[in-house]
Amino acid sequence: MTKMTALSISNITFSDNLWKKRQQLIRESVIPYQWDTLNDNVPGVEPSHTLENFRIAAGLSDATYYGMVFQDSDLYKWLETVGYSLSMHRTEELEKKADEAIDLVAAAQEESGYIHTYHQCVRPDKKWTNLRDDHELYCAGHLMEAAVAYFDATGKTVLLNVACRFADLISDLFGPGENQMKGYPGHPEIELALLKLYKATDNIKYLNSSKFFIDERGNEPHYFEWEAAQRGDNKGTPPSYCQSHLPIREQSSIEGHAVRAVYLYTAVAELAAETGDPELVEASERVWRNMTDKRMYVTGGIGSSHYHESFSFDYDLPSDRAYTETCASVGLVFWAERMLQLKEDASYADVMERTIYNGLLSGMSLDGTKYFYVNPLEVWPEAVKTRNDLSDTELERQGWFVCACCPPNIARFISSFGDYVYAFKEDRKELQVNLYAAGDAVFSTDTENIRVRQTTEYPWGEHVSFTLDSDKGGVELTVALRVPGWCRNPELKVNGETVDIEDVTENGYAKVHRYWQKEDDVTLFLPMEVEWIRADTRVRENIGKTALQRGPMVYCLEEHDNGSELQEILVSDESPCDVTFEEGDLGGINVITGQGYRETLHGDALYTTQRPHREPVTFKAVPYFSWANRTPGEMRVWLREAKND
Amino acid sequence: MTKMTALSISNITFSDNLWKKRQQLIRESVIPYQWDTLNDNVPGVEPSHTLENFRIAAGLSDATYYGMVFQDSDLYKWLETVGYSLSMHRTEELEKKADEAIDLVAAAQEESGYIHTYHQCVRPDKKWTNLRDDHELYCAGHLMEAAVAYFDATGKTVLLNVACRFADLISDLFGPGENQMKGYPGHPEIELALLKLYKATDNIKYLNSSKFFIDERGNEPHYFEWEAAQRGDNKGTPPSYCQSHLPIREQSSIEGHAVRAVYLYTAVAELAAETGDPELVEASERVWRNMTDKRMYVTGGIGSSHYHESFSFDYDLPSDRAYTETCASVGLVFWAERMLQLKEDASYADVMERTIYNGLLSGMSLDGTKYFYVNPLEVWPEAVKTRNDLSDTELERQGWFVCACCPPNIARFISSFGDYVYAFKEDRKELQVNLYAAGDAVFSTDTENIRVRQTTEYPWGEHVSFTLDSDKGGVELTVALRVPGWCRNPELKVNGETVDIEDVTENGYAKVHRYWQKEDDVTLFLPMEVEWIRADTRVRENIGKTALQRGPMVYCLEEHDNGSELQEILVSDESPCDVTFEEGDLGGINVITGQGYRETLHGDALYTTQRPHREPVTFKAVPYFSWANRTPGEMRVWLREAKND
Repeated sequence: MTKMTALSISNITFSDNLWKKRQQLIRESVIPYQWDTLNDNVPGVEPSHTLENFRIAAGLSDATYYGMVFQDSDLYKWLETVGYSLSMHRTEELEKKADEAIDLVAAAQEESGYIHTYHQCVRPDKKWTNLRDDHELYCAGHLMEAAVAYFDATGKTVLLNVACRFADLISDLFGPGENQMKGYPGHPEIELALLKLYKATDNIKYLNSSKFFIDERGNEPHYFEWEAAQRGDNKGTPPSYCQSHLPIREQSSIEGHAVRAVYLYTAVAELAAETGDPELVEASERVWRNMTDKRMYVTGGIGSSHYHESFSFDYDLPSDRAYTETCASVGLVFWAERMLQLKEDASYADVMERTIYNGLLSGMSLDGTKYFYVNPLEVWPEAVKTRNDLSDTELERQGWFVCACCPPNIARFISSFGDYVYAFKEDRKELQVNLYAAGDAVFSTDTENIRVRQTTEYPWGEHVSFTLDSDKGGVELTVALRVPGWCRNPELKVNGETVDIEDVTENGYAKVHRYWQKEDDVTLFLPMEVEWIRADTRVRENIGKTALQRGPMVYCLEEHDNGSELQEILVSDESPCDVTFEEGDLGGINVITGQGYRETLHGDALYTTQRPHREPVTFKAVPYFSWANRTPGEMRVWLREAKND
Repeated sequence: MTKMTALSISNITFSDNLWKKRQQLIRESVIPYQWDTLNDNVPGVEPSHTLENFRIAAGLSDATYYGMVFQDSDLYKWLETVGYSLSMHRTEELEKKADEAIDLVAAAQEESGYIHTYHQCVRPDKKWTNLRDDHELYCAGHLMEAAVAYFDATGKTVLLNVACRFADLISDLFGPGENQMKGYPGHPEIELALLKLYKATDNIKYLNSSKFFIDERGNEPHYFEWEAAQRGDNKGTPPSYCQSHLPIREQSSIEGHAVRAVYLYTAVAELAAETGDPELVEASERVWRNMTDKRMYVTGGIGSSHYHESFSFDYDLPSDRAYTETCASVGLVFWAERMLQLKEDASYADVMERTIYNGLLSGMSLDGTKYFYVNPLEVWPEAVKTRNDLSDTELERQGWFVCACCPPNIARFISSFGDYVYAFKEDRKELQVNLYAAGDAVFSTDTENIRVRQTTEYPWGEHVSFTLDSDKGGVELTVALRVPGWCRNPELKVNGETVDIEDVTENGYAKVHRYWQKEDDVTLFLPMEVEWIRADTRVRENIGKTALQRGPMVYCLEEHDNGSELQEILVSDESPCDVTFEEGDLGGINVITGQGYRETLHGDALYTTQRPHREPVTFKAVPYFSWANRTPGEMRVWLREAKND
């Protein structure tokens, strides 16, 4: 397998209306806000106590531990975000705060290398006795991810040393040796983090630890059952909740807690790419296909069940009861990116793009201050307020959560978005472009620095142009441009001359090889028709319905634009739609307007033999990610389709 | 208000294929089976312990109490069923068993009149301290209903005396007096039972007690809150769960636990009829309309939410998550019958008939041995097995339940079905016929005995004929025949001659007044077209769908007849349907067959821009009540409608 190198995000800047603004929001608002939250300085939001917990563990405070068993990870995710942000905009003030926090983490670390403030403060004698529920390995993983990001950004090694010392302890404790523990984490995360640490340090021990955790999961005798018996604990979640119902090499469907599942498979795919292990490659592909072919929402969200925040079964994709946690979308993007590395097929980037622009971005408000944990595809306000089976669904994004995994997760993703745009295949001198967003990037080969400029209005506009420029005057290189799966008639021009795109497209990438000079220009034209998406008819929820998509964006109707009782609106692909760019209150988006019908039957009787009455209406659809940024109200993605025969 | 007298069911016998068979099933199978269950003599079903609890309370056993706090009511409902059954078929063996059980109940009664084995055995010092949850008054109510039914059937007074002694104690304890408790039951039931006891004994004290409970409910200070504070109990259900969120006179919507709500309003409507209190009349009508216009399923089932077994909010009628408890259907029929007494409008009988033939009868298997607690309008087996929000739904009827309220409730209803068919208005010598079922009835005026013979294939056939015959040779009488709301073009013939039915119809009853002689015959022709029912478009679940109904029967598709993926089937009212009587495995029913389409899109991708493919199929629908009597599988009532524009 070809070794791929992501460009360092330190050299990628965006100039578009979507990522530029969001990265700025993260830098200017979210990072300071989350810092205040972690320090309990935000009145009216759920207390965090995260920093205080580290002070207690470090012996610097007499307070009492408060928070979830995975509270530490909130600080680690913040530090990871800060790392990405400093890569792009190094500011002394933020770095100073982060260094202080890192010093505190280092102070809290035990001599052995152990660090998990919950156990240190609350149950010091129960370390490693409940891998299923206690999240020590999970927090260790987030520590490693933060350490690598912070080291990449600043070159500073304090946090990296903390992470390595803990990783060393874990590598000693867990493994195939006679005196080593045969456990693995209830919540996967450390598997992917150890691979990052391996890449940052080149220490093969960390890769081997990751491999051990992956190989061990699901073996008999079942570790969590053995461990629970030791504790005298007869409660707990079923094995599939933690993906330990079967060894990974035998799994064929995506099961259990959605975030856990995609974090786990992110590591499986990356390990498969690193080792070339064919069983892991096959398991990755098999489970990926089950997810994307049968258990993924059109928004790229995953998790059909509030109960256990989990996958349910094939074709069960209820719109209103969708859980589709923001963190699960983030994790799905991680996995998609690893599959792309593993298989070099643009269809993985299609899924990645679908999730990013829809079910992931929806997790944050346009002003960056509020978050959705749950991202449903349909809301009926009265049901959200009344029905117990929607008790986790919210009509409006919230400032923070008791279980605050999603806000820092979306922040770290947005800050590192650049990582997902380009990939450079050094051995064959190929620059892959997986996502489109206006901006500049600089990357280096052994001999030169190459500047890439991407000019586009994407995701709103249909043209993407590239120029390349080397400090040596010119560069021989293949540029591989992803042709999105949603695009029907893409066109390619090099220096104004049309190239037959089919001739040059391989695995979904249109490839242009040449000696690039300053004045060369390659342009991809991606016509963005309004697409009428239908689901497999085994998805009961969506039969007879259509979802509107344009480019990567899935659309929805909101009550704000269309009135209430959205189920009464029918749309038809026989009526042409208009696409208009609106500056307006949603931050600059394309809206779709079209002619449809409103079908009503509001009589005295609940049931009648009359047919509903239809009258024409104009509907207005907005990108799904932008919903719930105006008047709270009804929303729906899947629209009833008129006359589809 | 006109005093109405139901004909004694002792004088009504059925000869049809539905009620005759079911009453026989109750008599020959259900009553003995339930007796064995109450005595814990059925291997493999949930233990009941009901009789044993009475023995413990009577000092005849040293065992330990087992069961719900309302376990006593299972015996009382059985005794009530036995009463109805003995009215029609008096058998020594059954009466002997019942008398023994009654003697045991009498032995368990305390000197004070108190009887509630849970408190007597488990918490004797906590009587009347938790009216919200402890069901003492609820059990008292079922005791009274059983006592009246058994007295009516046998003339024996042992149980009636037990009931009166307990009612006397309750009337002393609760009331408006200075030293009386101001409480009311958490689970309404005693209110309607006290009115039955009043009618059986003519003791106005019982009517006054019922009135007290009804008037007191929901007043401030809130009794359940006061009582909970006394107990130091800060948990518990919200006031609307018990319909105590507002005084009844101020309620305008049906709220909370569905069975409680309809039991309560049964009493409210009856008390309104007894007292003429205009505020109670209005409250009954207001809340009834809210229920039937906005919160009732097309099967006549009620309760849209598993959580709290409750109503939810207007137009929220999910088919798969329907709770629609069998007991709630039984209670709705009680209430409908009281509304009919109160208002003399056939539309109440329409609702009563809808519920009886659909959402109530579905609660029992065709062979009478198995029961549904939950009666959904749509099932997807995989979802029932997997989804936590369907955890109470079953694919197959069960033998018994831990909370075994439904089986005895449906048994007592079927045994007393005759009560709902006829009503005789003595003052104006009018025989009202509210439901149609072949059979004979005898009733008496001051001067004569009148025999009514109803000849019909209803609910399968369209003609209903009546002959009347008096022991005096003839009788002057009005026969008022309900013209069902579902019927479009009814016709009426008297002795073969057509009468203009519109001319003689009043409040939904076609009235024929004459001096009836043996040879006279009145025939109602009720054409039973296949009706294509649509719901108000504010019911999101049902928009774009239709339910098939013929006569009073709502139909459904089952996987057994139509294959799986029933959502793919589209029906159209432009294709004619055939109705065929099938003896077959569903005990003799009309099936509907028709031409529809199957719409499929089973591709490699979950989402595509392709349209589904349609091909013609023949569908077969069976009456809803008969579902799940063959191979377990998918079922749905609301069918997608093709080309409804």
